[in-house]
Amino acid sequence: MGRVSVPRPPRSADRWAVVMAGGSGTRFWPRSRRLLPKQLLPVLGSRSLLQETVERLRGLVPPSQILIVTHQDHASAVRRQLPTLPRRNILSEPIARNTAPCLALAALEIERRAPGATFVSVPADHAIADAREFRATLLEALAWAAAEPVAVTIGIRPAAPETGYGYIQLGSRLAGRTARVRAFVEKPNAARARKFVSSGTYLWNSGMFAWRTATILELLDRLLPQVTQPLRAALAKPARARPRALERAYGRIPSISIDYGVLEHARDVLVVAGDFGWSDVGSWAALAALEVAGSRGHVVPVDAKGAVVFGNGRLVAVVGVEDVIVVDTPDAILVCHRDRAQDVRQVVDELTRRGLASYL
Amino acid sequence: MGRVSVPRPPRSADRWAVVMAGGSGTRFWPRSRRLLPKQLLPVLGSRSLLQETVERLRGLVPPSQILIVTHQDHASAVRRQLPTLPRRNILSEPIARNTAPCLALAALEIERRAPGATFVSVPADHAIADAREFRATLLEALAWAAAEPVAVTIGIRPAAPETGYGYIQLGSRLAGRTARVRAFVEKPNAARARKFVSSGTYLWNSGMFAWRTATILELLDRLLPQVTQPLRAALAKPARARPRALERAYGRIPSISIDYGVLEHARDVLVVAGDFGWSDVGSWAALAALEVAGSRGHVVPVDAKGAVVFGNGRLVAVVGVEDVIVVDTPDAILVCHRDRAQDVRQVVDELTRRGLASYL
Repeated sequence: MGRVSVPRPPRSADRWAVVMAGGSGTRFWPRSRRLLPKQLLPVLGSRSLLQETVERLRGLVPPSQILIVTHQDHASAVRRQLPTLPRRNILSEPIARNTAPCLALAALEIERRAPGATFVSVPADHAIADAREFRATLLEALAWAAAEPVAVTIGIRPAAPETGYGYIQLGSRLAGRTARVRAFVEKPNAARARKFVSSGTYLWNSGMFAWRTATILELLDRLLPQVTQPLRAALAKPARARPRALERAYGRIPSISIDYGVLEHARDVLVVAGDFGWSDVGSWAALAALEVAGSRGHVVPVDAKGAVVFGNGRLVAVVGVEDVIVVDTPDAILVCHRDRAQDVRQVVDELTRRGLASYL
Repeated sequence: MGRVSVPRPPRSADRWAVVMAGGSGTRFWPRSRRLLPKQLLPVLGSRSLLQETVERLRGLVPPSQILIVTHQDHASAVRRQLPTLPRRNILSEPIARNTAPCLALAALEIERRAPGATFVSVPADHAIADAREFRATLLEALAWAAAEPVAVTIGIRPAAPETGYGYIQLGSRLAGRTARVRAFVEKPNAARARKFVSSGTYLWNSGMFAWRTATILELLDRLLPQVTQPLRAALAKPARARPRALERAYGRIPSISIDYGVLEHARDVLVVAGDFGWSDVGSWAALAALEVAGSRGHVVPVDAKGAVVFGNGRLVAVVGVEDVIVVDTPDAILVCHRDRAQDVRQVVDELTRRGLASYL
């Protein structure tokens, strides 16, 4: 593969998109609950992250060719949030098994409906500032994926030495925004992260991919047969028997990510460098950093530098406490230091331990 | 005056008590509001501080001889909280003018009803652990006040080098818990406060006093005629005309404390040392220190040493923030560092500035 120019993208009829909406979003407690995970919340405005993700994909992919994969507990909420999407485009998993089974299920469904298609897969719960550049980047990824039998990942030009993301080391440049992947790198420590960013040859791993259906299924069948075989068997069943069969299949297949299970072992992977104001909105602190107007109600700070309030109509006063995040909801209040936003998960664990199910 | 034993207390018919309930209690925002100041709040349990104060005085003074002085805006709430108290025992001030006018008004009323009486005056918003010892101390103060034409103050054995209280330097000991006052000392700095406490010859000034009505009125007429003259004139008016007359009088008289205006200038003052677990409950931090079960609803702390929650039924989770006080109410939430509890007043100022009257 020695192209000097970006290949022509597949025609719109052959473009599909898969939105991975399986997250449980405990890190956004108390706003996120078991039945209302982060991707279903209006985190950034009036529409949920899922609704914004689907909206962003329109114009790149025909709505009839956008699939949502979600946990069965959330399927009805997803349908309510996306009324214009065909019901059959919402695939529900009986058990969350991370991204590899999720993408395998989607790929098998696309293969069944549209042999020869190429698709992008994107998480449902990311924030993207520049939707136009986002679509241009994904279109380039679709073009490479349609032209070559390889996985194409979207890398993000790092804005800071984040230790919370995996990184992608760039290999030889191809054309446009695209290069070969030299290596996938696990979450680094602060020192390595700084090296990565200053080197200019590392990108954040965004968890977004493009590939021909045939390509990902070939990779999955080779690298994760324990995932694809039970799924193929279940989907081969008559429609009536399929739900129970899928449930049994998911009971057997391992929980494994597409990065760890496939991409890190794939010989040939391309990366398209994206620069469209990306955030995975991984915690209240990340959301606070986006400085979204997430608050309803008055806020009165007194010597409260760095305090961020996600209000719910009530007035919130913060006195002499810096870098604190306050989240108000009808039945629960969170007061959390910005540096400890990841540990909101511990609150959820404690609520589970105490059996306070009504707050979960 | 060279007694070697505590004089006999006045007979119960001659004992009166004045409860000073004029506070506006902005320091307990958001629980305390303009129409619901601290003394009317169930700060320590199911009953308000005022109700507990009156309850404490029963057994020392006949209920018919307990007067409450409050701001006219709070008079009806006071009546509701003290249904068994004769209505005429609730005196309302048209304008808050600190403790000297408050006690002058009460003394003139007692003089009118019961010439020759002796009374104790106590703030409505203090916490007292040992009511029995409290009554014994006040009875001793009543005894000295009835026997001698002097002001008797209640001093508190200091539990810590507080810089938020005025101190009383002890003079020659008389008998029982009682000594002469050598000097009243303004709020000291930390170093002096430590000296005071270690010396063992200083007490906290509790703002509680005992005196014969004739004694305090003589002191007031001599030292603060600008307070007593307008009041005497107003009260001399026929009942119908009295409210307007009082309003005009209060418009003219200065705002001044009994400590600053009278006691610091009185020649002869006695002090009875009290040791009954006293707190002026001056702020949320002071209340937190009392470790009262002021909270309704679940609390989930994660690395939140020293955090105190005054809940309101909602669950409150605190993550990675130490020494924080969280106060929940139906329409407002306060998040405040324990060392900054005094600055809750600034929130009230800001709300006033912004014209957010509904939160005041």
